[in-house]
Amino acid sequence: MELNVYLAGQIHDDWREEIRQKAEEMELPLHFTAPMENHDRSDNIGEEVIGQQPDKILKDEAASSLNNLRTQILMQKADVVIALFGEKYKQWNTAVDAGTAVALGKPLILIRPQELHHPVKEIANKAQVVVETKEQALQALSYVFETK
Amino acid sequence: MELNVYLAGQIHDDWREEIRQKAEEMELPLHFTAPMENHDRSDNIGEEVIGQQPDKILKDEAASSLNNLRTQILMQKADVVIALFGEKYKQWNTAVDAGTAVALGKPLILIRPQELHHPVKEIANKAQVVVETKEQALQALSYVFETK
Amino acid sequence: MELNVYLAGQIHDDWREEIRQKAEEMELPLHFTAPMENHDRSDNIGEEVIGQQPDKILKDEAASSLNNLRTQILMQKADVVIALFGEKYKQWNTAVDAGTAVALGKPLILIRPQELHHPVKEIANKAQVVVETKEQALQALSYVFETK
Amino acid sequence: MELNVYLAGQIHDDWREEIRQKAEEMELPLHFTAPMENHDRSDNIGEEVIGQQPDKILKDEAASSLNNLRTQILMQKADVVIALFGEKYKQWNTAVDAGTAVALGKPLILIRPQELHHPVKEIANKAQVVVETKEQALQALSYVFETK
Amino acid sequence: MELNVYLAGQIHDDWREEIRQKAEEMELPLHFTAPMENHDRSDNIGEEVIGQQPDKILKDEAASSLNNLRTQILMQKADVVIALFGEKYKQWNTAVDAGTAVALGKPLILIRPQELHHPVKEIANKAQVVVETKEQALQALSYVFETK
Amino acid sequence: MELNVYLAGQIHDDWREEIRQKAEEMELPLHFTAPMENHDRSDNIGEEVIGQQPDKILKDEAASSLNNLRTQILMQKADVVIALFGEKYKQWNTAVDAGTAVALGKPLILIRPQELHHPVKEIANKAQVVVETKEQALQALSYVFETK
Amino acid sequence: MELNVYLAGQIHDDWREEIRQKAEEMELPLHFTAPMENHDRSDNIGEEVIGQQPDKILKDEAASSLNNLRTQILMQKADVVIALFGEKYKQWNTAVDAGTAVALGKPLILIRPQELHHPVKEIANKAQVVVETKEQALQALSYVFETK
Amino acid sequence: MELNVYLAGQIHDDWREEIRQKAEEMELPLHFTAPMENHDRSDNIGEEVIGQQPDKILKDEAASSLNNLRTQILMQKADVVIALFGEKYKQWNTAVDAGTAVALGKPLILIRPQELHHPVKEIANKAQVVVETKEQALQALSYVFETK
Repeated sequence: MELNVYLAGQIHDDWREEIRQKAEEMELPLHFTAPMENHDRSDNIGEEVIGQQPDKILKDEAASSLNNLRTQILMQKADVVIALFGEKYKQWNTAVDAGTAVALGKPLILIRPQELHHPVKEIANKAQVVVETKEQALQALSYVFETK
Repeated sequence: MELNVYLAGQIHDDWREEIRQKAEEMELPLHFTAPMENHDRSDNIGEEVIGQQPDKILKDEAASSLNNLRTQILMQKADVVIALFGEKYKQWNTAVDAGTAVALGKPLILIRPQELHHPVKEIANKAQVVVETKEQALQALSYVFETK
Repeated sequence: MELNVYLAGQIHDDWREEIRQKAEEMELPLHFTAPMENHDRSDNIGEEVIGQQPDKILKDEAASSLNNLRTQILMQKADVVIALFGEKYKQWNTAVDAGTAVALGKPLILIRPQELHHPVKEIANKAQVVVETKEQALQALSYVFETK
Repeated sequence: MELNVYLAGQIHDDWREEIRQKAEEMELPLHFTAPMENHDRSDNIGEEVIGQQPDKILKDEAASSLNNLRTQILMQKADVVIALFGEKYKQWNTAVDAGTAVALGKPLILIRPQELHHPVKEIANKAQVVVETKEQALQALSYVFETK
Repeated sequence: MELNVYLAGQIHDDWREEIRQKAEEMELPLHFTAPMENHDRSDNIGEEVIGQQPDKILKDEAASSLNNLRTQILMQKADVVIALFGEKYKQWNTAVDAGTAVALGKPLILIRPQELHHPVKEIANKAQVVVETKEQALQALSYVFETK
Repeated sequence: MELNVYLAGQIHDDWREEIRQKAEEMELPLHFTAPMENHDRSDNIGEEVIGQQPDKILKDEAASSLNNLRTQILMQKADVVIALFGEKYKQWNTAVDAGTAVALGKPLILIRPQELHHPVKEIANKAQVVVETKEQALQALSYVFETK
Repeated sequence: MELNVYLAGQIHDDWREEIRQKAEEMELPLHFTAPMENHDRSDNIGEEVIGQQPDKILKDEAASSLNNLRTQILMQKADVVIALFGEKYKQWNTAVDAGTAVALGKPLILIRPQELHHPVKEIANKAQVVVETKEQALQALSYVFETK
Repeated sequence: MELNVYLAGQIHDDWREEIRQKAEEMELPLHFTAPMENHDRSDNIGEEVIGQQPDKILKDEAASSLNNLRTQILMQKADVVIALFGEKYKQWNTAVDAGTAVALGKPLILIRPQELHHPVKEIANKAQVVVETKEQALQALSYVFETK
């Protein structure tokens, strides 16, 4: 048995790469997907595919249509979703993805620093598991495969 | 025909009251529901119902279990969801509710100031209608009932 | 028992009004909904609600976001969908609505002139009932209520 | 990860072959399905399988029952649907397939020439991505697999 | 609370009228629906609505499109389905309706004479309640409303 | 807005009557349903409706087919489910109903004495709200209707 | 692409073996499943697994619980269902399976002799394709894979 | 064809190992999953992953969030669920899992000693097959694969 894991969260640093490496070290049968992690690419993909747009709002609309195509396809194939929240950035996409995962019946693992507990409390209550570190999230998934 | 409308968004000012009044003036057959709009009540409801909690995180967990009970029941009865984003506050619940609405197949009307277009772009792309003002959101709903 | 009936089809003449009048004469407990039947209003509703748009494509995009809001809400409330095809107009929305109705498990009554049989054949095969006139469509619905 | 892509649209020229070739050149892990692309076969398949029919309408009904069997099976296996509209032909099946895809929660990529923007506007608004060329549609799908 | 009850079964005698009368005597808040109980009407409805057909098979196809329209609409509104089997008639529609009810998650009450136990055994196993008489079926429904 | 509330739990004392009375005192717009609360009736209903059975197991099978008919119909109409666990009785039906409610997407309020926390921990984790008293469960539902 | 095909129908002769052989000759990528085709085994399986039963009705109930387990599992894995009706036998299971397939959204191919057109007319109207021979049913499935 | 089988039930002895061994001896193509069978691990997993908790209730809440993550993922992948009840233990999780399986449309095989017939009667009525031994449960699954 393998599990598809969608990694929702900001795309400003390489936190997903850490998760991928640790999962490999732990020899977990996990297949990870994620939004486009190259931030500039994510912002420009609309114009790259559809062509130059007349203003910034339309450039954003074009980009988001492609980013959402990606998310919709990948999340439908996911068995479980990990959502990471941090102190920085608006992270509204992370919250949207978390809400979508729960509404689709996909279990949600929330990673958030304890300091964020207040604003993230309703999301934490919707999550199946709430942890503070990426290691803990992987331990939670490891537990699904262990038998002893 | 009447429509149930869930009003997702921050609970720090009385923007919902404005919508309710305008809808009444426009004589629209809309029934509005919303999260608890008394912010202190929303934060304390866990301890009010379940009793005092040992720390802030558990107080928040208790409160969010009741806030989410409310949202789950009310959103399931909604025909359409309006989500309002503004410059202030984290607004993660607004984003979660927006994602939930779309995943449940309920049409989403997004109200956001144009300045927010970049961080809210993926939500805007998921919304059925994107407007900047509360009046526009009600005009959109009014259009559903008009025939000429 | 009352039935909600969504009337999909072109909005260039008053065929829906004929159906409404006949249903009233037949004293059928039917409640009809439909797309905006004022064609100019349907084309301009985007700019009316959201404001002037920079070009025709964006004007159309704005209008269609409101027209689809209307269709999504009304079709979800429909118990049965009538789709009328005629010789004129592209009628792609009629076809989209027909496909949507069937995919949502809502029974479809197709009204089409016999001359159109070839291009409309796959839609006819998906429809629960295929007729040529508006009277026949109402007779089909009348049959649902009759007991003798 | 591989994706199944259903190619909805007219069957009068070989536009799908172009897409298949380009996808191969781009080494995209896509598996394409489509309606019967041999137009005569598609019209005659009812009589080929079920036997000669008494008139043209019944010949069409027989053919469409087989064409819809094919579409229903293939679309249920699709992860994403591409719908191509052009200036010619009625293209009602394309529109039905587009509506079906969206109602089934499958993301829709619409290819249409800009000149068609007005009659196709509600379909465009339902699509996740709207492009003008086959290359752009494949670039959109390529983006789902890229990570940088 | 009222319950909608669809009465599936043969339309050759007035067994439904007995059920309706008894339910009234028992003052049960039940609303009954059923297929067209006038057998000739049921056979001829296709030609009545759509017009004369070239042969018997097409007359039957026309009639069944209207009978199925009726069943689809009424069964979707049903809270519970009663299916009655007897010694006579093919009763394939009864079996189809029973299978449909179970697949849609609607509870099924089966009325069948004990002599039929062998051929109806798989249907009996799918039913929520199996009884031999119409009175027993109504007692089962009465139990849903009783509190003592 | 009114809410339908299914009261899952043992039927050996009159805990539901307490809830009904308190809800009335609190003037909450709640409509309660429940399993048959007359324990003997619940055990004997199979033989009452279907007739005497050859042994105890078959008597139980007959009774449970009617008890489950009741539960299935009432739970499908419920907006929210309250499940009460106590120190006595096996309470397997309570647990089954709790699992069913969550799987159907209906919010679950769990009432359990704190002493039971260990064996009921997985159910508590599935519940939307966990309380210790009937009053608290009603306060939770009251909160859904309050606005200040 | 391979398709799973469930073969509903009587189990008194070897019609399924004919289909399997022809499919192999035609080199169609079909995987067939079916009810237990050994009729005695199908009748006795309840007692074989669960033990001797006190009477014939209970023997049948035991057997049908196992036959339905089989059907439920296999039909959920099916992409398409073929249902064969003939002149002999009650064939109520065939009709139940046909109704179940359609309600689950699985396309149905009906094989029936033309003489049966009247009693099977509502099932025929629900089927996606209606044919008279096993060869025709396989040609219909073959068409799903052909491209020219 | 392989089947995924989730083994719900107490985790105090090695009954699942017996099932696994027998299935291997019978050469059945079954893949088994289950809750964590190491009872101490199951109780402590919350603190192992998330860290030490302030009291026993919170330790249990942490553990159950991980146990439920496991169950949710594994049950969604299951084709069929076996639930074993015995004389000892509260077995509420077994009952919850049984209710969840049925609500998700997954067939349930119940293993219970005959002595338990009364308290487990409603669960037995919901199960597709009721047996007394592990061997019988495997014979039931074996029957799904047999053809003679």
